[in-house]
Amino acid sequence: MTHPQRPVSFSARIPPGEDRERRICDACGFIDYVNPRIVTGVVAHADGRILLCRRAIEPRRGFWTLPAGFMELGESAEDGARREAREEACAELEIEALLGLYSVPRIGQVQIFFRARLLNAPAAGPESLEVGLFAWEEIPWSELAFPSVPWALSHHRATLSQPGLSAFSSPQTVA
Amino acid sequence: MTHPQRPVSFSARIPPGEDRERRICDACGFIDYVNPRIVTGVVAHADGRILLCRRAIEPRRGFWTLPAGFMELGESAEDGARREAREEACAELEIEALLGLYSVPRIGQVQIFFRARLLNAPAAGPESLEVGLFAWEEIPWSELAFPSVPWALSHHRATLSQPGLSAFSSPQTVA
Repeated sequence: MTHPQRPVSFSARIPPGEDRERRICDACGFIDYVNPRIVTGVVAHADGRILLCRRAIEPRRGFWTLPAGFMELGESAEDGARREAREEACAELEIEALLGLYSVPRIGQVQIFFRARLLNAPAAGPESLEVGLFAWEEIPWSELAFPSVPWALSHHRATLSQPGLSAFSSPQTVA
Repeated sequence: MTHPQRPVSFSARIPPGEDRERRICDACGFIDYVNPRIVTGVVAHADGRILLCRRAIEPRRGFWTLPAGFMELGESAEDGARREAREEACAELEIEALLGLYSVPRIGQVQIFFRARLLNAPAAGPESLEVGLFAWEEIPWSELAFPSVPWALSHHRATLSQPGLSAFSSPQTVA
């Protein structure tokens, strides 16, 4: 909300019918709802090896991560995971299953990880120093960037023999 | 971001290192990232019957829905589903499994539904005209509020015989 004629001022108040404080514009009553953000990512595998990217950007530059990032407006969680894999690892994917849904209230995030089949030879995108395909025993556990990376890797490993495992995602007709 | 000394003005520009326009404050460079919002809800069941709430508020006042609403900062998706069930139906729940993850890009939402066991006798909260427990053949299909309600109901029904079905959610140690 912009009010070009006067300075902007928000107050923390409880809107009518609600039970918690929100930032509300003193001029127009606009309520600035702030909600958790979604990170969407992927455990992409080919021939039993898993795609990891070494981060070229902060936070955790130099550490290894799964392709993942903030979901954008106008895309599905699956689209977002595919986009992040393309941006970070020049990777093309076939999404296979929902692997994990991790809430991290401390940082206001919900992290969604899919399992996917890697369809091409990956290469470092601008946010990666390098990319690699790792057998399970080759994974650099002590150099992983974020806690959700070993969670998703472990959940991938634990469910490899359960190809049908998946929560439902949106019917294909949804736009 | 507030700039008390001057009017606020945002421009749509592409930040360095990114590939799409964001709203950026002309005064301080603050980037107003806008991301999809999370709706978290629940198919709560007891003795084979499913909890539905008839909406007392717009949109879709008078139609039946599953307890669900926007996830708040500081809670997990499971916490949010429990809170919504408490607010809308005075219901206490035991979350059993992740049932569905539905992306609805047109409205910028990701909807997360859990299966849960209903632990008490529900009653209408302030956002509900009434609540009810419905056997499958009693569900008012033509009076459901949103497309994701029949999706989650159908996915609940389709997986009733698969008690182990669930994507992983966050390890309990996560705060």
